[in-house]
Amino acid sequence: MNFIKDLIESIRKKKSVVCMGLDPRLEGDYSIPAHIIEEYGDPNRIILEFNKLLIDATYELIPVIKPQIAFYEMYDALDSLKQTIKYAHQKDLLVILDSKRNDIGSTSKAYAYATFNIYEADACTLNAYLGLDSIQPYFTQFKEKGIFILVKTSNPSSSDFQDLFSIKISDVKGETTEITMKNVKLERNYIHMAKLVEEWTQCLDEYATFTNLGVVVGATFPEEMKVIRKIARRSFILMPGYGVQGAKAEDIKFGFNDGLGGIVNSSRGIIFAWSTRRFY
Amino acid sequence: MNFIKDLIESIRKKKSVVCMGLDPRLEGDYSIPAHIIEEYGDPNRIILEFNKLLIDATYELIPVIKPQIAFYEMYDALDSLKQTIKYAHQKDLLVILDSKRNDIGSTSKAYAYATFNIYEADACTLNAYLGLDSIQPYFTQFKEKGIFILVKTSNPSSSDFQDLFSIKISDVKGETTEITMKNVKLERNYIHMAKLVEEWTQCLDEYATFTNLGVVVGATFPEEMKVIRKIARRSFILMPGYGVQGAKAEDIKFGFNDGLGGIVNSSRGIIFAWSTRRFY
Repeated sequence: MNFIKDLIESIRKKKSVVCMGLDPRLEGDYSIPAHIIEEYGDPNRIILEFNKLLIDATYELIPVIKPQIAFYEMYDALDSLKQTIKYAHQKDLLVILDSKRNDIGSTSKAYAYATFNIYEADACTLNAYLGLDSIQPYFTQFKEKGIFILVKTSNPSSSDFQDLFSIKISDVKGETTEITMKNVKLERNYIHMAKLVEEWTQCLDEYATFTNLGVVVGATFPEEMKVIRKIARRSFILMPGYGVQGAKAEDIKFGFNDGLGGIVNSSRGIIFAWSTRRFY
Repeated sequence: MNFIKDLIESIRKKKSVVCMGLDPRLEGDYSIPAHIIEEYGDPNRIILEFNKLLIDATYELIPVIKPQIAFYEMYDALDSLKQTIKYAHQKDLLVILDSKRNDIGSTSKAYAYATFNIYEADACTLNAYLGLDSIQPYFTQFKEKGIFILVKTSNPSSSDFQDLFSIKISDVKGETTEITMKNVKLERNYIHMAKLVEEWTQCLDEYATFTNLGVVVGATFPEEMKVIRKIARRSFILMPGYGVQGAKAEDIKFGFNDGLGGIVNSSRGIIFAWSTRRFY
């Protein structure tokens, strides 16, 4: 397999760019139906059976699913995650494990191994606050797998840090500096992150239109999407935030070039659609 | 329990600021001894028995341990992680789960629940690239637990993003801006992260000398440590990078005020000390 080639092929075949987020919840406003919870009792069984129903209902229509590992950890149900991924593969679906892992090089290798060999995902999300050596084990040791690096996230507080204006100055030491010239251009932190990703794609297949190195940009930020699309030009954009979080069709159009280059994730809007009256 | 109060009490009682990193490896230069691997066969048993030996040898001397979850995931041995944490608690040790989790608010809650209720850790590490709402569930719903936010990490590539010079400008839209005045002060991204942490500690117990909101600063960066110590003045500093990664005693002194305010992590240098000839 090669993640991005397989993804593009599946998008073309199924004529869909929808990614179904599998974020199971056993209580609260967005929850697995009570009759499934009662029938199976054990969280691993409940979640697996619910996910299978969702996969059966959607696999002919969508290319990819994105389980969020936090919910499987929360219910101590990582076995259902592994079984869900195996089942999805049988049904011709690609799997992005949403785990946002990040660590120094030697530990990053361990996470990469777990992602691709224990959970058997085809791709994952990563947080690159730690820089290149924290990401490298993924694209050197698992070249055929996909990674999506957080650039501009869909949540309200993403502005706290990602929206700072910044500049790279190589020849200065210490923790502060003064800008002594006029008209110095600063770019937001998320722009720098997008540029780092673009730089890192240079290490990858230079002839490919799209590489296995993607980005995450919240569909809740269409203007930012437009700019990032141009910078990370060889990266697919994974777009969360559609549906319950507020983004609509017009917000995501800037993530695409000729129908390719993006996948739109919806979690609660699809998997808890049986209880739509609660949120529309 | 209250993490930071218990930590300070234990540091005073045991007269130690050492944190033992439990990063089990079953192969390579730093590995669990072959006779333990042969004796127990199953990764969950091997890792648990090895960790118990390490805990037995150290619990009277140190206040806290830090298991790195990546290695437990890699060997599909999360059960040994849970059992190790239970055993550490019986032996009067505090436990920081090194997991560097990060996600939007609703998912962050699920991670916090897993960290404290499934794994039963007393504290954890977090990556705050996503801003306040990604951190809030930890200190609102689990007030008595500790969190350590990545500020300046110990790895070589930490400069890629953490060392950019930046500034917060609230009244500008768009992805770029120009500095039109002279003498505008910029601070590195890690300084902004330290300041965010200091701002967030305002939400916590205002009379405490140290709060449950700590920071991570690589012991490999003593100058940065000195500056961050002054900014995040009510935060304990978790210092990885001691030993195998290169930091020495003189590098960590700036992380302390009167003997408090820091804990120094060593993983490979302690737990694989049986094979010291390999790395000294």
